[in-house]
Amino acid sequence: MTRTINLNADLGESFGAWTMGEDGALLGVVGAANVACGFHAGDPLVMRTTVRTALAAGVDIGAHPAYPDLQGFGRRPMTMAPAELEAAVIYQVGALAGMAAAEGGRLTHVKPHGALNNQACEDAALADVVARAVRAVDRHLILLAPALSELQAAGERAGLAVAAEVFADRAYTDAATLVPRSQPGAVLHDPGAVAAHVMRMLEAGAIVATSGKRLPTSMHSICVHGDTPGAVDNARQLRAALQAAGWRLVGLREALGR
Amino acid sequence: MTRTINLNADLGESFGAWTMGEDGALLGVVGAANVACGFHAGDPLVMRTTVRTALAAGVDIGAHPAYPDLQGFGRRPMTMAPAELEAAVIYQVGALAGMAAAEGGRLTHVKPHGALNNQACEDAALADVVARAVRAVDRHLILLAPALSELQAAGERAGLAVAAEVFADRAYTDAATLVPRSQPGAVLHDPGAVAAHVMRMLEAGAIVATSGKRLPTSMHSICVHGDTPGAVDNARQLRAALQAAGWRLVGLREALGR
Amino acid sequence: MTRTINLNADLGESFGAWTMGEDGALLGVVGAANVACGFHAGDPLVMRTTVRTALAAGVDIGAHPAYPDLQGFGRRPMTMAPAELEAAVIYQVGALAGMAAAEGGRLTHVKPHGALNNQACEDAALADVVARAVRAVDRHLILLAPALSELQAAGERAGLAVAAEVFADRAYTDAATLVPRSQPGAVLHDPGAVAAHVMRMLEAGAIVATSGKRLPTSMHSICVHGDTPGAVDNARQLRAALQAAGWRLVGLREALGR
Amino acid sequence: MTRTINLNADLGESFGAWTMGEDGALLGVVGAANVACGFHAGDPLVMRTTVRTALAAGVDIGAHPAYPDLQGFGRRPMTMAPAELEAAVIYQVGALAGMAAAEGGRLTHVKPHGALNNQACEDAALADVVARAVRAVDRHLILLAPALSELQAAGERAGLAVAAEVFADRAYTDAATLVPRSQPGAVLHDPGAVAAHVMRMLEAGAIVATSGKRLPTSMHSICVHGDTPGAVDNARQLRAALQAAGWRLVGLREALGR
Repeated sequence: MTRTINLNADLGESFGAWTMGEDGALLGVVGAANVACGFHAGDPLVMRTTVRTALAAGVDIGAHPAYPDLQGFGRRPMTMAPAELEAAVIYQVGALAGMAAAEGGRLTHVKPHGALNNQACEDAALADVVARAVRAVDRHLILLAPALSELQAAGERAGLAVAAEVFADRAYTDAATLVPRSQPGAVLHDPGAVAAHVMRMLEAGAIVATSGKRLPTSMHSICVHGDTPGAVDNARQLRAALQAAGWRLVGLREALGR
Repeated sequence: MTRTINLNADLGESFGAWTMGEDGALLGVVGAANVACGFHAGDPLVMRTTVRTALAAGVDIGAHPAYPDLQGFGRRPMTMAPAELEAAVIYQVGALAGMAAAEGGRLTHVKPHGALNNQACEDAALADVVARAVRAVDRHLILLAPALSELQAAGERAGLAVAAEVFADRAYTDAATLVPRSQPGAVLHDPGAVAAHVMRMLEAGAIVATSGKRLPTSMHSICVHGDTPGAVDNARQLRAALQAAGWRLVGLREALGR
Repeated sequence: MTRTINLNADLGESFGAWTMGEDGALLGVVGAANVACGFHAGDPLVMRTTVRTALAAGVDIGAHPAYPDLQGFGRRPMTMAPAELEAAVIYQVGALAGMAAAEGGRLTHVKPHGALNNQACEDAALADVVARAVRAVDRHLILLAPALSELQAAGERAGLAVAAEVFADRAYTDAATLVPRSQPGAVLHDPGAVAAHVMRMLEAGAIVATSGKRLPTSMHSICVHGDTPGAVDNARQLRAALQAAGWRLVGLREALGR
Repeated sequence: MTRTINLNADLGESFGAWTMGEDGALLGVVGAANVACGFHAGDPLVMRTTVRTALAAGVDIGAHPAYPDLQGFGRRPMTMAPAELEAAVIYQVGALAGMAAAEGGRLTHVKPHGALNNQACEDAALADVVARAVRAVDRHLILLAPALSELQAAGERAGLAVAAEVFADRAYTDAATLVPRSQPGAVLHDPGAVAAHVMRMLEAGAIVATSGKRLPTSMHSICVHGDTPGAVDNARQLRAALQAAGWRLVGLREALGR
């Protein structure tokens, strides 16, 4: 029996006159695109173009909502009241859903961005707000969340389909969190090392920490990047390695067995 | 046979710590609410609260998209490329549609705001962009447009249902445009005068200019305001006068005979 | 010998079409105005009008910089990198200084707003960033800071003249911090109670906590408000009570004895 | 006797996570930098870094104010009330002046950006608003304006020192305006052609239109770009050609003979 896995990446992170990322190249690699919704990147025209090209490439489109923070690219922690945050997430998901409808498509999923994602992975109450917002817009949306995070748990509590992701190029601690970038070895740069890391986790059915410790989890998607030199190449090589190992690269819904 | 007419007003024009308008009172008067979508007013939480209270009051909710201009309240003319504007309108309509879905409702209509509306009433090409954007999100949305405007024509060209509106408290020129506010008599302040003006037009099936000239048009909705002293009272008295004259106050879809 | 004290208040908190506060009335009461600089409130035109009317009233003008957060009115905690925050404060102070120059005046002081102020009162490192920013723009600016706060200490470390303020209508804990609004008695509403509270502290030369504990401190300014019903009246009565008790109401520089 | 000329370019057009332009390279070429002030590009930290590096390179720094339009990069025409626009320009100039003060420098000049500049070159009333704003902040600031434009005339009416600029790589009409980019030959790409075009105008003391027509004007500065491939190389070669022809490259004040 063929095993299936999804690859996802953040796209549509340009804004106005400023461009970012290698969206065209990534669309040939991934099966799911997390599209910025205007709060941290992605003006309406960028959103529409991204949705159109993703649909043309047969790539799932998902909303990538963030804190309202264009200057900080959504990476700066903020404190919003639960009702404010819930409405902000609904707003962004709705805006991208409108763009998808305008292009004859539909959203598959939602994945929070940056500081919002980081905080929702640690803070169950915040994670519940995010999950509630997603469910409120459309209960058929998949929540794409880091494996073993509070966000994953919140999605399940909310009755959403949750796709669990691991990061292709990041080392993990024994607590299933990412090794901070300030520490050596936090980020894997070598394509071979990236592919080996992912394969090891997929075969183990577990996050494999740098200590060797195994944290069993389902894994439906691998997060890759396109914003650093060599990142797209790494993603391409990972894709090839997965295919060579017999993994079939699919959309999020199929990766969830739905 | 009972004649039907709709009353509409702009709602949800608060933002963050700043409040504006008398939304609660207006919801007891109108049958359709044009809800600000965050570009000129209305942050996500204001939008959600407005949608919720409008739905609870049985009032149609529509998107009120604008130029991206919070400081200018969307009243400052801008020049956007057609593709930029189309995407900006889709974005705003989608965001409000998401909010409506989150509250268990649906959008009935779209009415452009401020400078965007004014320009779309005069400029056929711009009006086509707006109509195209509305249709792209959802072809079942009603376009609420000033009677005899280019926007009305564009909506019809796009195959949308178009509800034609007249303004309760504004005098008209022979060209079916509003008498500029700088001219005497441009705005009607007396409740009796407002009701008489509206009734005269409804009975005539025509916009009645200050010269007395009649410009025949269908009329499905009357636009009232809640942002000036006495405005809500005027709207209330207009509603009572219409009912006394045998007009049934309905939602937009019923006013269109659908 | 006459004793001197300053009254300060936040002004210029309108934005575009939205108005807030009773600036006209407050300018007859206070000697120092903290003027919003566009990040949490106060668009450029509001800033200019506020500066003009404050100068005409002989009231000191100061910058009231905040986190970049219009929707949250600068009240939402954010995490900015020190260099980002320092530049953001310089930007806002510079913008208001330009407005003051355009009106033939000069800035007297800087007082951080909302969440930025709250965090700078507790976090010495953050307070140092704010103080450094103020000093960088103009070392002659007075830093207006809550008495016994980390911000006051940071201003002194930076070599700035620091005016220490207490709040007219807020109860204090034994740690010289404000009793949280969630607790009973946190906010004084009765004009007589407000005046008595202030007078007690001024006579004692100390913050007087609700427990009766005295925390000795210099006090150069009393912060009053104009954004709640009755607030301006409270401020007026406080002013009258101070004058009746022999206090002379002065600008910030004179209150500092400079 | 040595002849003097200034080269100017737009710098500091990055924003947050997005970078734009080759500022480092340009600072080795030009004598005056027009620094974005946050309304179309340039967040506070970008502004500070730009000011610091420009001062270190001995390059004049000037404010480059724009319409409030981050998505449109200040290139979209807007209609602002005169008082709004005047305040917006003062705000931006003040913010950059604060940044300059923080880095131990001073502003030399102001040059409007994008659509604001274009409109001020054609519309005398708008140009007067801009000139009035510059003068209001600091009457010693130089206004850098296209030669023979309404903006130049407005600066002179306002009593400002006005530096007249021509564009190195743009063809001119007989009306001293730029040939629209939509027409062939509007933009010069070949470095030799650029240098020859500039030299021809400098020697003639006139704008030389594509027809050969000469429009006599003083010329104090040449505007070069760094935002397109080859632009910096063109600027470098122009600089070398000017020096080879005996022109001394100076700051704006010296170019004005002050």
